Amino acid sequence: MRFEDSTIAIVGASGAVGSEALSLLAARGHPLEQVIAVASARSVGKRARYGEDREIELQALDLGSLGKSDLAILALDAPLSRELAPQLVERGVLVVDNSSAFRMDPEVPLVVPEVNVALLEAGPRLVANPNCSAILLLVTLEALRREFGLERVVVSTYQAVSGAGQAAIDELRDQTRADLEGRELQPLAFPEPCAFNVFPHESKLDPSTGMNGEEEKLIRETRRVWQDDRIGLIPTCARVPAIRSHCQSVFLTLKKKASVDELKARLRAAPGVEYLDANRSGGFPTSRRASEQDSVLVGRLRAAPDEECDEQGRVRSFSLWLAGDQLRKGAALNALQIGEALLSAKS
Amino acid sequence: MRFEDSTIAIVGASGAVGSEALSLLAARGHPLEQVIAVASARSVGKRARYGEDREIELQALDLGSLGKSDLAILALDAPLSRELAPQLVERGVLVVDNSSAFRMDPEVPLVVPEVNVALLEAGPRLVANPNCSAILLLVTLEALRREFGLERVVVSTYQAVSGAGQAAIDELRDQTRADLEGRELQPLAFPEPCAFNVFPHESKLDPSTGMNGEEEKLIRETRRVWQDDRIGLIPTCARVPAIRSHCQSVFLTLKKKASVDELKARLRAAPGVEYLDANRSGGFPTSRRASEQDSVLVGRLRAAPDEECDEQGRVRSFSLWLAGDQLRKGAALNALQIGEALLSAKS
Repeated sequence: MRFEDSTIAIVGASGAVGSEALSLLAARGHPLEQVIAVASARSVGKRARYGEDREIELQALDLGSLGKSDLAILALDAPLSRELAPQLVERGVLVVDNSSAFRMDPEVPLVVPEVNVALLEAGPRLVANPNCSAILLLVTLEALRREFGLERVVVSTYQAVSGAGQAAIDELRDQTRADLEGRELQPLAFPEPCAFNVFPHESKLDPSTGMNGEEEKLIRETRRVWQDDRIGLIPTCARVPAIRSHCQSVFLTLKKKASVDELKARLRAAPGVEYLDANRSGGFPTSRRASEQDSVLVGRLRAAPDEECDEQGRVRSFSLWLAGDQLRKGAALNALQIGEALLSAKS
Repeated sequence: MRFEDSTIAIVGASGAVGSEALSLLAARGHPLEQVIAVASARSVGKRARYGEDREIELQALDLGSLGKSDLAILALDAPLSRELAPQLVERGVLVVDNSSAFRMDPEVPLVVPEVNVALLEAGPRLVANPNCSAILLLVTLEALRREFGLERVVVSTYQAVSGAGQAAIDELRDQTRADLEGRELQPLAFPEPCAFNVFPHESKLDPSTGMNGEEEKLIRETRRVWQDDRIGLIPTCARVPAIRSHCQSVFLTLKKKASVDELKARLRAAPGVEYLDANRSGGFPTSRRASEQDSVLVGRLRAAPDEECDEQGRVRSFSLWLAGDQLRKGAALNALQIGEALLSAKS
């Protein structure tokens, strides 16, 4: 069916990802009367923004009403998703879940359309949206992986607070204001103060590996989407006081040698990627520049200075820098792209 | 001579590094009357803080008065240092220069006391203080390099704005305040807005290598201090909206295999390093936790998840995370440590 004729439910519409999904639907001109915005009990009756100049009423979770939608985007915590998703599927609703609930479920495809949209041709009823950091990395490296093969990826993230939800965005603003006024504010959304601070990602540390939950997700989900367990993935995930876009410093080793120019050409042609050449106008990928952009901004591609070039100027290892909107391509936009593909596959 | 009997000049005393040097001298109980605080013309006659409750008058640059000091710490731009340092040396003053002016001069030792204090035994009159990011990395990795050898270091920096001076610290605060109030503020200290933003380091990009000046310094100076051009150094330098401490995400490959426990034991015993175990109280190294600390805080040491352990649980590659005060160990403290060693070597 046509996306524009479908009724779409955004469940968790008052949260950071849900609000972004509403904003994307409004920007695409999706009719307001074909959108159901569901929020938790304390937000019911309030109104959320639907684009620049309209508002939409937030409704309570009601399976009868939700069951009439064609597609539901779930922007909920994993336990809530685990409960709700099967009930919606049973009622014939196509579901895209943004939580971690189904990401490693072998029955549920984990999809980044730029990488593995073909999985949607089988007509799954429930699809999982990967972790935001994994999406940004996958979109960026896919074209290079296809052409040259990937052996190892060392990635250090600079993650905005938006990944921890609207409360974390509010806390960064409030705590920063307090800090500038010489007041102290107890951290609530994070175990550390976030104002003017950089700290390791707050997810739980596994003492046996030394990795936190975000790093484990990045490894697991990237390998699952690429269907390749041999790629070495070495992530370090950290929070920075940015509002809504993540940056990543990536060091990658290819299977085949390549030149900087060959890689830049691939990145320029890659779907979902905008390559910014620092020598032209537009500058570098930054948190602010990536915010409210659909594409992942990529730049600073350079050869490893300690590897010797062959006669064609090719090496195996490169550094690059990327910035992508965590709420948009890292969450709501990827989910909507999946939803569009699911609907168009539906007879 | 004894450090406490010496007269010490801080040249550039109204800047971020100069102020920190004054604060460190006051904390060590150095007599106020044995300190000469020199500032640029527009600050002369003003007073700077000397510890919690005292103030020191800022003087104009005067070679006659400066020539009477035993030690001068220069916290100036490179061109000014290049001019002033030889004139002070000629007058018998020991000089520690914090700028990049002499760092690659083969006649001038480049010193991080925890690594190569022995160079000061020859009694040099002029010593260069390395770049802040290089100091923090060198202090952290020295004990591991000595024991196991270093083959390659991939480092991504999360650099506070303080590295660009007091004006940059003021700009981060002012711009953040403006942003929270919905006002816009033209960036002055950086080419990008710094409030709530992450952006590649502002130093000049070399189009032939794709590296910026900070990355080039990090490679050059690290190799010079370690006297080893074969170590592969792959830096990515970025700015984050933190006030005065840099973080670094480091991925290192040793020459010999080692276990996580062996490396932790070395780091715990390393001078200038405080290893924070996330499973104990004190938490992780963060920008805020490292601020106003002498030691580099190190944590999150873990083995590369894609390398197979031998029977002793040893691999060659590891990740770690560090945070260090850019103004203190990254600049003023390292310079004072060099100065103390120079004075004590002086008969």
